[in-house]
Amino acid sequence: MTTFDELSRRLGQVSDLGAAASLLSWEQETFMPPEAARVRGLQLATLAGLSHELFTAPETGALLEGAQPDGDTQAAVVRVARRDYAKATRLPTAFVEDRTRAQNEAHHAWVHAREHSDFASFVPYLERMMDLARRQADLMGFEDHPYDALIDDYEPGMRAAQVKEVFADLRDRTLPLLERIRAAGDAADYRVLTRPFPAEAQKAFAWRVAGEAFGLTGDFARQDESAHPFQSNFSRSDIRITTRVEEYWPACLFGTWHETGHAMYERGVHERWERTPVSAGASLGVHESQSRMFENLLGRSLPFWQRYFPQLQEAAPQVTAGLDAAALYRAVNRVQPSLIRVEADEVTYNFHVMLRFELELALLEGSLSVRDLPEAWNAKMQAYLGLTPPDDASGVLQDIHWSAGLIGYFPTYTLGNLLSVQLLEAARQDAGVAAGIDRAEYGPLRAWLVEQVHQHGRSLSPAELTVQATGRPLSADPYVAYLTRKYGEIYSLS
Amino acid sequence: MTTFDELSRRLGQVSDLGAAASLLSWEQETFMPPEAARVRGLQLATLAGLSHELFTAPETGALLEGAQPDGDTQAAVVRVARRDYAKATRLPTAFVEDRTRAQNEAHHAWVHAREHSDFASFVPYLERMMDLARRQADLMGFEDHPYDALIDDYEPGMRAAQVKEVFADLRDRTLPLLERIRAAGDAADYRVLTRPFPAEAQKAFAWRVAGEAFGLTGDFARQDESAHPFQSNFSRSDIRITTRVEEYWPACLFGTWHETGHAMYERGVHERWERTPVSAGASLGVHESQSRMFENLLGRSLPFWQRYFPQLQEAAPQVTAGLDAAALYRAVNRVQPSLIRVEADEVTYNFHVMLRFELELALLEGSLSVRDLPEAWNAKMQAYLGLTPPDDASGVLQDIHWSAGLIGYFPTYTLGNLLSVQLLEAARQDAGVAAGIDRAEYGPLRAWLVEQVHQHGRSLSPAELTVQATGRPLSADPYVAYLTRKYGEIYSLS
Repeated sequence: MTTFDELSRRLGQVSDLGAAASLLSWEQETFMPPEAARVRGLQLATLAGLSHELFTAPETGALLEGAQPDGDTQAAVVRVARRDYAKATRLPTAFVEDRTRAQNEAHHAWVHAREHSDFASFVPYLERMMDLARRQADLMGFEDHPYDALIDDYEPGMRAAQVKEVFADLRDRTLPLLERIRAAGDAADYRVLTRPFPAEAQKAFAWRVAGEAFGLTGDFARQDESAHPFQSNFSRSDIRITTRVEEYWPACLFGTWHETGHAMYERGVHERWERTPVSAGASLGVHESQSRMFENLLGRSLPFWQRYFPQLQEAAPQVTAGLDAAALYRAVNRVQPSLIRVEADEVTYNFHVMLRFELELALLEGSLSVRDLPEAWNAKMQAYLGLTPPDDASGVLQDIHWSAGLIGYFPTYTLGNLLSVQLLEAARQDAGVAAGIDRAEYGPLRAWLVEQVHQHGRSLSPAELTVQATGRPLSADPYVAYLTRKYGEIYSLS
Repeated sequence: MTTFDELSRRLGQVSDLGAAASLLSWEQETFMPPEAARVRGLQLATLAGLSHELFTAPETGALLEGAQPDGDTQAAVVRVARRDYAKATRLPTAFVEDRTRAQNEAHHAWVHAREHSDFASFVPYLERMMDLARRQADLMGFEDHPYDALIDDYEPGMRAAQVKEVFADLRDRTLPLLERIRAAGDAADYRVLTRPFPAEAQKAFAWRVAGEAFGLTGDFARQDESAHPFQSNFSRSDIRITTRVEEYWPACLFGTWHETGHAMYERGVHERWERTPVSAGASLGVHESQSRMFENLLGRSLPFWQRYFPQLQEAAPQVTAGLDAAALYRAVNRVQPSLIRVEADEVTYNFHVMLRFELELALLEGSLSVRDLPEAWNAKMQAYLGLTPPDDASGVLQDIHWSAGLIGYFPTYTLGNLLSVQLLEAARQDAGVAAGIDRAEYGPLRAWLVEQVHQHGRSLSPAELTVQATGRPLSADPYVAYLTRKYGEIYSLS
């Protein structure tokens, strides 16, 4: 056995423990009987602890140091694992345990606070999470801004300064667009979006199209229901998406296709990296570029509905009565400022993210105190979207992220949106891909995505991947052009 | 932290790894997409390996030696864990790995052999499993018979000599009964057992009765479908049963109530032993006593059907047309010698087990060679049940057990049958329990079972439990009396 073989064996065990934990978590959200929750939590803690122990053990460090990789595949494994090891060993066990406890307490406090729209009761918990975030940034180390140390967990290599610059550009060029759209008024009859659509028919239609259009099949994937939709996978041959059914039926359809984008990314990672830390998406932002591409750039496109409208008619004739593909297309592309991020349309969504990013920076820098957060939130909500939340539950308390200490996570949603269009534009340089997209036949596009994005897993950084696949660094230009073109047409803007 | 606390922490981790593995296995049989099988196998191997490593580590031995238990609860944990540790450390890792490989190969060979009814191709694999069984017995050590070392894994403390004695008694007293039943002819119209019963209605009725009669509820349990019914649990608050639907609808109903018996046993183990090795049934035999009690002694009793016949009428009017509770009771208690153990009735079932036990003994002793096994099987099948299998697939190749090296497992099925009646007779000494049983109200019985059987988990040996709960050692008497009484009445034997 070579040192690399020994390393592989150990990384395989770490991967298996992670997969087991993911399965337990997925099952917790889908099938688990309610009384099982307490012990399931203990089981998940054990798996996380043993996995961390195994990966950060000095033996792992010695294997990583001694491993002489043979070829590109092995080199990527060692490179990625060394980076993960360096990061994982920088946080002392006592800190990690302290943070886990604080997250647990803050989570319960947040659930209670949101339920009662009582931000004051959440203040001490969020203050503690911010303290921990600052301590974590110090432990991890950074050059320019503590935020850089945090966002790196979700978007490796990304820096606060770059986010600031891209976001400022995006904001300055989409706020005027939003104003023009709002001035234009309705572009369709939006009441069709809540016409009765039986639950089973919603799920079946969404799943069938996920297979036919996007390649997700029962051979390696399942669709189940959960309170909040998510994607999870336990190997590239064992992928789960969940969805939920609502009166507003687009939630089920586009939610399913969103998770399908995540699923097909994980499916596309090359199998040579099976059971290694390379076998996952490059970052949350790149992941989001795939989910948003399927959900919005394809799923909310006119060619898509020209192709799938007849199937929707068959699945839900009462929904499509009196409509055609073009009318449905306009209806599912309604632009409407709203209070809740997860319900936002393509134009307003990014303002929800910018707001959070700006508040995170201010909190971390200390220029904003946790106590003053609701006021700052509401001011930005008014500035960006012209709305004031009636209460903190539909304002500053709406997201779970901060209660879990996930500072630096939100920007990846918008980075993913930007990258989705930049990638699609690059893919369309291939005439076959472009022709396919225009007929809603996505086989050539999917092949391009596997080649340029999926197969690489974590072997490329998001920045490397972006340049390699699109020829240039991430930019707001393609996304702004896309929004302007699409919504200019829908809302007949001159 | 005391030594016991440290021990507890470690045993908790071992328990959590086992629970995770059980969940992965359960999911493999219920929901997993087919392509996931290969990696799932690797994940399960990692969990088993890490769990074994953690439990058999010298540190565990030191903690077990140093632990000073405080009180009965802790004393039982240390006692059971010490016994498990002594057994687990007696097999060298090389032997365990060798056996795992052999099991894997033999399993595939068995699947192929059974499919083609080709025993000859299975011979070398079964010979190897028998060699491994002999080596295992030598490594574990035994006083009288190598079989003692093997059966101890499934029925702690049981010995071949005791099984022989009890089985001989049972055989001598039930063979004549079987002959009288066969001479009596049909006791009902058995065609009703394959009347159309829609799949969803079968499952729903079986599950509703599992809750109403036996206490299994969705708060801590789930019912799903799988190719072979089984019970699995990941804590006493996280229990799963599976069932399957067949044209012969009693398979679904009685299968569900069988697994419900297993489930309620695990549910009843006292929570003070949560995440310790005490938290499980005392043995396979005691487990089977609970499943067979619910399935047969209660589920196939007249009072049961007098109570639940109206619900069956509502669930499946086409099945019950022209029948009453008594007619249904006689139909589901058909006695009919058959080739397949898992389909056998209460009277003939144990002959299937005796046959296997006798063959296992002869194989282990070397008085029978693997090559001659089919001939010996068929001879015994003729002697006990008057049948000759048309091929080995429905004869010697029907069970999975031997391919997995599970020698000593089969007797627990019959030991469980015997114990089920012995326990029920003891429970009936309580007038409230007896009155409840006669009205098919099982609350008092379940309370008695929790008190006398379930709560103790593995803290009592099967023999201790039997004497404590019933006042005497295991005997065939109650079971023989039960069969004679029940089937004498059904078949109007004089």
